[in-house]
Amino acid sequence: MTSPFTLHKTSTNCAARRGEVKTVHGTFQTPIFMPVGTQATVKAITPADLKTLEAQIILANTYHLFLRPGHELIRELGGLHKFMGWDGPILTDSGGFQIFSLKDLAKISEEGADFKSHIDGSMKFLSPEKAIEIQEALGSDIMMVLDTCIPYPATEKEVIDATNLTSRWAKRCRDIQNRESGQLLFGIVQGGMYPHLREMAVEQLLEIGFDGYALGGLSVGEPRQEMYDLTEHGAALLPKEHAKYVMGVGTPQDLVECVYRGVDMFDCVMPTRNARNGMLFTSKGRLVIKNARFKSDPLPVDESCDCYTCRNFSRAYLRHLYTSREILSSHLNTIHNLHYFVGLMTDIRQAIDEDRFPRFRQEFYAKLEQ
Amino acid sequence: MTSPFTLHKTSTNCAARRGEVKTVHGTFQTPIFMPVGTQATVKAITPADLKTLEAQIILANTYHLFLRPGHELIRELGGLHKFMGWDGPILTDSGGFQIFSLKDLAKISEEGADFKSHIDGSMKFLSPEKAIEIQEALGSDIMMVLDTCIPYPATEKEVIDATNLTSRWAKRCRDIQNRESGQLLFGIVQGGMYPHLREMAVEQLLEIGFDGYALGGLSVGEPRQEMYDLTEHGAALLPKEHAKYVMGVGTPQDLVECVYRGVDMFDCVMPTRNARNGMLFTSKGRLVIKNARFKSDPLPVDESCDCYTCRNFSRAYLRHLYTSREILSSHLNTIHNLHYFVGLMTDIRQAIDEDRFPRFRQEFYAKLEQ
Repeated sequence: MTSPFTLHKTSTNCAARRGEVKTVHGTFQTPIFMPVGTQATVKAITPADLKTLEAQIILANTYHLFLRPGHELIRELGGLHKFMGWDGPILTDSGGFQIFSLKDLAKISEEGADFKSHIDGSMKFLSPEKAIEIQEALGSDIMMVLDTCIPYPATEKEVIDATNLTSRWAKRCRDIQNRESGQLLFGIVQGGMYPHLREMAVEQLLEIGFDGYALGGLSVGEPRQEMYDLTEHGAALLPKEHAKYVMGVGTPQDLVECVYRGVDMFDCVMPTRNARNGMLFTSKGRLVIKNARFKSDPLPVDESCDCYTCRNFSRAYLRHLYTSREILSSHLNTIHNLHYFVGLMTDIRQAIDEDRFPRFRQEFYAKLEQ
Repeated sequence: MTSPFTLHKTSTNCAARRGEVKTVHGTFQTPIFMPVGTQATVKAITPADLKTLEAQIILANTYHLFLRPGHELIRELGGLHKFMGWDGPILTDSGGFQIFSLKDLAKISEEGADFKSHIDGSMKFLSPEKAIEIQEALGSDIMMVLDTCIPYPATEKEVIDATNLTSRWAKRCRDIQNRESGQLLFGIVQGGMYPHLREMAVEQLLEIGFDGYALGGLSVGEPRQEMYDLTEHGAALLPKEHAKYVMGVGTPQDLVECVYRGVDMFDCVMPTRNARNGMLFTSKGRLVIKNARFKSDPLPVDESCDCYTCRNFSRAYLRHLYTSREILSSHLNTIHNLHYFVGLMTDIRQAIDEDRFPRFRQEFYAKLEQ
């Protein structure tokens, strides 16, 4: 089995690496940040905006699309790419994380998970086989196995049981997957906060063999340093010829630290969600646009930024849009924040290409206003 | 005094006419539809979108901008054009219509109107002089005089009093206006549903002399045919060398009928507001996107439309966005509806240029699906 990942370069003084992943809908460069398009739309912007922002791959949520409008409908309409008007690569999660976050999760069994729809309260069932069926109907480029999510904190016994179940589910996903479609399938490493259980999980997944590997169950409430340590440990366990993905991470600092530790792929709702809440990212730090000090501020959000928002609008205007609850506020803020995240990853890739990522990392912190 | 309006052509068999209005921020072609940008943003789209849509002039609301963020702030930041990033012509209303629509309108006197802010409940005062001060601070290309709005129905005595007050306020606006700025000032014809009082109003306004004239107090609940008759009557009373504007109108049918009767300028929230409520305009009629019959409909909203929305997305996808309450729903629907309104006016202008507007009007109705 050949890997869709090609390693271009490994840093001399850290684990950061440059590569690319080849999918049916094109190749994307790593390290990469994937904007989240939960309900078949990256909230508040168009696919044309995503192209302008040079986003290379986006993530969509299986759980949400399964419930509404339904994967069968999307299949009937030609798949998720056609449905949402995005012709680049799409990664879909398995739905596991959302289901395990539901308060009304009814029951987890060997077979799968019974849960209640947050939309209409109806009972639904998701199994490893069903998760693959849905993702195949959506036609995503990268599918994720259905995994169990482990609460934090959890006992060793709980983690062992959940991790073993995840590996058995991963096997069922791999077995039922249609290998002819070109859709890739990534495994997910659980193991909670126990390094030896993460080693066990990696062994189990490598035994099955996947097209790439994700570190799951991180950023769930543990101290940040513990997350970084487990990421470093996990990334080192995974073979270098495969893409390594940390799910649901994270802040700009998290991206820099996890790249430093060898991670290739990231997704997070932070740039888009925070944009809608009026929180903007800049190279100097974060800016809360509703703050009274921006009331008559004629400057752009970030003077060094060349996004559409910063080229055309002042902080005073963006504050006005936010306080007036105008839809344009979410649109312009989202463009800025995604431009920042995408641009950060572009800069990171260039720094790795030039084998100066540790210095880039230092400069990243030096720019932040304390 | 020269008029900023240039008449290009008058139709042979109806009152429809082609012309243009010259302003500080450029010349626009008439008949024209002005998208409404109440709070210094045409809701849910960017100024770049407006340019793509070929909108030539937009309207902003003095009442809203006076209350938030305040006209002084906008002046300090370089005026409304710079504030909102729109470099084309802007017309501002006087704020009168909004104030007279408020439930908490406290008092109208010879001097002006006391009212309560809908934002924080504070007491505010708007006079003819204040309305001009605000619009001069905003720096709009076309300002409107402060007028009184007459309830429907109203007695002849009520209409006479309100119309006379409007004319006295119009004189005060004209007197205090800074004529050096290049900002144009339009008078507003009241007179309720009484043709002879509209004649009186026109005489009073012409005596003062304005850069253009609006027919106010229409589309306030009267039967549609009565609105058309008063429009025809009012437009005929106004001199042909001035732009004629019917405020707050209207539906596509209203635009066609009022152009037929000699009107040059229109504004209405309908295309933008209805877009956010999922109601889309097409040449065949209206389409309510949440309707279950669009659930798996792969067609665009309008197969003959070449807007971004119709070129890229199906009715099924737009229905999904609407039912999922996604922000992109408002954005894409607004683009489509404004494209329809702007395109309708482009077609109308071409029909008048070719002296076939009566036939265009017949074809407009023939296309509508009954």
